[in-house]
Amino acid sequence: MDTSAKMLRDDALKGKTIVVTGGGSGLGKSMTTYFLELGANVVITSRNIKKLETVKKELEEQTGGTVLPVQCDVRNYDEVEAMVQASVKEFGTVDVLLNNAAGNFISPTERLSANAFDTIIDIVLKGTKNCTLAFGKHWIDKKEENKTVLNIVTTYAFTGSAYVVPSATAKAGVLALTRSLAVEWAKYGIRFNAIAPGPFPTKGAWDRLLPGDLKEKFDLAKKVPLKRVGDHQELANLAAYLVSDFSAYLNGEVVVIDGGEWLKGAGQMNLLEDVPDEMWDMLEMMIRSKKNKS
Amino acid sequence: MDTSAKMLRDDALKGKTIVVTGGGSGLGKSMTTYFLELGANVVITSRNIKKLETVKKELEEQTGGTVLPVQCDVRNYDEVEAMVQASVKEFGTVDVLLNNAAGNFISPTERLSANAFDTIIDIVLKGTKNCTLAFGKHWIDKKEENKTVLNIVTTYAFTGSAYVVPSATAKAGVLALTRSLAVEWAKYGIRFNAIAPGPFPTKGAWDRLLPGDLKEKFDLAKKVPLKRVGDHQELANLAAYLVSDFSAYLNGEVVVIDGGEWLKGAGQMNLLEDVPDEMWDMLEMMIRSKKNKS
Amino acid sequence: MDTSAKMLRDDALKGKTIVVTGGGSGLGKSMTTYFLELGANVVITSRNIKKLETVKKELEEQTGGTVLPVQCDVRNYDEVEAMVQASVKEFGTVDVLLNNAAGNFISPTERLSANAFDTIIDIVLKGTKNCTLAFGKHWIDKKEENKTVLNIVTTYAFTGSAYVVPSATAKAGVLALTRSLAVEWAKYGIRFNAIAPGPFPTKGAWDRLLPGDLKEKFDLAKKVPLKRVGDHQELANLAAYLVSDFSAYLNGEVVVIDGGEWLKGAGQMNLLEDVPDEMWDMLEMMIRSKKNKS
Amino acid sequence: MDTSAKMLRDDALKGKTIVVTGGGSGLGKSMTTYFLELGANVVITSRNIKKLETVKKELEEQTGGTVLPVQCDVRNYDEVEAMVQASVKEFGTVDVLLNNAAGNFISPTERLSANAFDTIIDIVLKGTKNCTLAFGKHWIDKKEENKTVLNIVTTYAFTGSAYVVPSATAKAGVLALTRSLAVEWAKYGIRFNAIAPGPFPTKGAWDRLLPGDLKEKFDLAKKVPLKRVGDHQELANLAAYLVSDFSAYLNGEVVVIDGGEWLKGAGQMNLLEDVPDEMWDMLEMMIRSKKNKS
Repeated sequence: MDTSAKMLRDDALKGKTIVVTGGGSGLGKSMTTYFLELGANVVITSRNIKKLETVKKELEEQTGGTVLPVQCDVRNYDEVEAMVQASVKEFGTVDVLLNNAAGNFISPTERLSANAFDTIIDIVLKGTKNCTLAFGKHWIDKKEENKTVLNIVTTYAFTGSAYVVPSATAKAGVLALTRSLAVEWAKYGIRFNAIAPGPFPTKGAWDRLLPGDLKEKFDLAKKVPLKRVGDHQELANLAAYLVSDFSAYLNGEVVVIDGGEWLKGAGQMNLLEDVPDEMWDMLEMMIRSKKNKS
Repeated sequence: MDTSAKMLRDDALKGKTIVVTGGGSGLGKSMTTYFLELGANVVITSRNIKKLETVKKELEEQTGGTVLPVQCDVRNYDEVEAMVQASVKEFGTVDVLLNNAAGNFISPTERLSANAFDTIIDIVLKGTKNCTLAFGKHWIDKKEENKTVLNIVTTYAFTGSAYVVPSATAKAGVLALTRSLAVEWAKYGIRFNAIAPGPFPTKGAWDRLLPGDLKEKFDLAKKVPLKRVGDHQELANLAAYLVSDFSAYLNGEVVVIDGGEWLKGAGQMNLLEDVPDEMWDMLEMMIRSKKNKS
Repeated sequence: MDTSAKMLRDDALKGKTIVVTGGGSGLGKSMTTYFLELGANVVITSRNIKKLETVKKELEEQTGGTVLPVQCDVRNYDEVEAMVQASVKEFGTVDVLLNNAAGNFISPTERLSANAFDTIIDIVLKGTKNCTLAFGKHWIDKKEENKTVLNIVTTYAFTGSAYVVPSATAKAGVLALTRSLAVEWAKYGIRFNAIAPGPFPTKGAWDRLLPGDLKEKFDLAKKVPLKRVGDHQELANLAAYLVSDFSAYLNGEVVVIDGGEWLKGAGQMNLLEDVPDEMWDMLEMMIRSKKNKS
Repeated sequence: MDTSAKMLRDDALKGKTIVVTGGGSGLGKSMTTYFLELGANVVITSRNIKKLETVKKELEEQTGGTVLPVQCDVRNYDEVEAMVQASVKEFGTVDVLLNNAAGNFISPTERLSANAFDTIIDIVLKGTKNCTLAFGKHWIDKKEENKTVLNIVTTYAFTGSAYVVPSATAKAGVLALTRSLAVEWAKYGIRFNAIAPGPFPTKGAWDRLLPGDLKEKFDLAKKVPLKRVGDHQELANLAAYLVSDFSAYLNGEVVVIDGGEWLKGAGQMNLLEDVPDEMWDMLEMMIRSKKNKS
């Protein structure tokens, strides 16, 4: 099995224009690359325009597609509106918004200042809200239809998680935004979905999240029933499906792609995986002998 | 803090008649005891009438209440209907049905026969359905109102769990039954709720579930954020609330009482609990020094 | 059945000090009243100190308890820290934080400015976070244990909802905060739970939310299987249970008290409630006649 | 937008052998057709071998693929084992099991006999369990890997639903089975996922479910934010993705494809959709005038 195989028909996104916030690095870049390969134009945003310019060059050469880099701090609504205008000016229209820009850090919560906590809420929740509101108002105003918004959340958006609490609260908010507007804005021809990825390591993000030798000690692959982390192309396949017209009847849905990681932690008796086979044999014999006696 | 303290006003269940299937042992017996203390009459059922008779004597002496023991295999609808009639004959009416009878065993699923799997579905899901249907038809037919059904499920009713798969499927069915009829039969004055208990050890059940020294090795208390198992009175307090009129506006709800156990497993970064304080100190310094440089 | 009956033993909260943000009106005031009746001292906060002073007088006369009114805008961390200090100065210690202060308005989302949206996030999510962080740091620093935080959320915290999208995103964040810290801070002896109330009308809030004759047209009671709204005492009973030691094994749990409202909307075939009895009779006959023929 | 467009690369399922229970009609037939088009061999099962033979002929002509029809009542474990053997004998190996066979009827629950209720549990829950257990034991015994099981559930598997209660309980059980074995059997190279389809009308099933003019009166499309029912190809696209290797990192996941139907019912304020625009205008003015006065 080749986890880097590409799923969709070659022209699956032909003619679509897709905005990927944080599209210049990590998973955002992987999704951007696949969207380009499938025929889409992609707008990538971040605070660092230099990095975006480099990525534009790299991906246009690699895929033959068209990339528009736009500097934008998603926390600032004026910058977001300007980004909408720049995208529309370049491509005439935008079909898909992929809210991928995020921030996170691991820390015991009592060590955080109120300000540090707010920063994550501002980037993740308010940033997603800003982009969604700006594109939504634009589409509704222009009476454009068949639009879709895809939000990147996490599995701890529904269960919460210690040590990443600002991110957990913000991502939970993004999930509620997804489900709320999936219902409310369907009448305008805009649908909403989300992806909750498990461990898909990216040099930048993971390094910041788990510095030093913690990475080895807290190897997330071990927590995954499939005993491996995800391949970026696997996420890109799912994302391409969800922004394409092929998923037109999915609306308000969050798709978890984590190899079963969160379920393995959640199920009460899953820890019994460590019981060795011989002990199961013994248990079986004990139970049978009890039955025979009674 | 005294976890065995009793919550409700002394007469909270006065005049109520409550049927507790499997009420002769384990958690069922603990709930029965508290219901009797609060003034209720209780019908206890099980396949073993001898054991029920002993429990009746013990609990009537201890609480001064009235217990009716009825032999009943909940898998058999005729026996269930006879149990309804016996209860009504003795007490005139029944106000509460507590579906507590259950069966379970731990095993790798591939070691189970189709028949063994079915047995658990029959006891847990069909048994609960049988009692619910028999009492529901009776109440609806007699136009009696202000009735309540309380079902005991588990946290793995929603997440699933390895090694107890027959129980997981059956309990999930019971949860859906709870939520479905909470809506459908509200018009007849019958409401439905459920409790999902975490680890509340009982000699009988736990011994069968985890025989031998597995109990120590797989100590469930360690998985609970509160680092302890539950006290039976804590469950009895919650159950008494949910069968009393004080909870009249709860309907279709499942209340988890597990000290946070399932959430601790589920949240992706909760494993970082094992990071020692000195390492958090170090991480903080690293992050600060990076910031100062940039 | 008397929905205004009071559940807990008279001294259930004796000696506890409870902070109720937004405790001067609506459901906050109802919960505060019952806490006082059960023997607790209560700190009530809001931006309007005059209103708080009036409520203090009223409730102290009514219950014989002790109320401390503290002016506090929960969006401002400095004010929150001052409120913590004022509470501790008055009562020596605080045992319970009830995050009840909130803001909401109904509106199509595309009519909202980015700023209006932010205001609700700031009050509800950042406000709850501020109070939680300030008390948490205080308790952890002082090594005080057996503390509990109760958050008020909504049923649309998990499903989302149109027309109240800022509130939906913020309350979802609060729910994730509840579940995250239930796991993380259990080691410090702090537990977290939440209540998701359905329709409990309060003059102030509901009037603002649904002005004019919309209240009648969109009567929420009709959506509730039990065909009624909740009584404030029913919510107060649940809240008192959840802040008392009787619920010590509930941690990370959100209890829905809505008469089954959200489930009734959610279940696909629940709309069949409108099928009249005669039609069910006819359907039954049709099905039987088909069977007899085959 | 063409909802009948086909998503995957032409050879996406080449060389796979897929068993589709109930594959001879309705959605099962639609999925079977697309699997054949993508290069898979398909085994279709049902109790009616004549119908299966006709479908085999029709689909082989239409797609050029290979279909094996096998008579099998999934309630009977011996028949299921025979079906496994027949499939293996024909194709050497089976890669995918799609548990699609189901039974359902709408009825007030109090009109059901205990037996009628049991029949649905037996077909849906025990049938799915039987097929899963038989193939699982076979794969584990033969040490074959890279297998996948896809189960068809419903949105009311998690929320419950009135008037289809036997199906709700059984499908909830199937969902728990999916999540439990996703964790437990991952070590054997078997993964599990589920689809929860909203309204995808099929002549047979829907006719039986809602006879007569009820179909019009209770038009499910109206409950869907997207205001339409699903196209069978949309479901087939999703199913093909989930049984293909492209979804190899999805495990234990249930994907809802319902246009947002269940969320629209669930969200508390979604009913405000019926507020006309002029009233929103008026409300806005009222709120602004209040602000100006204060």
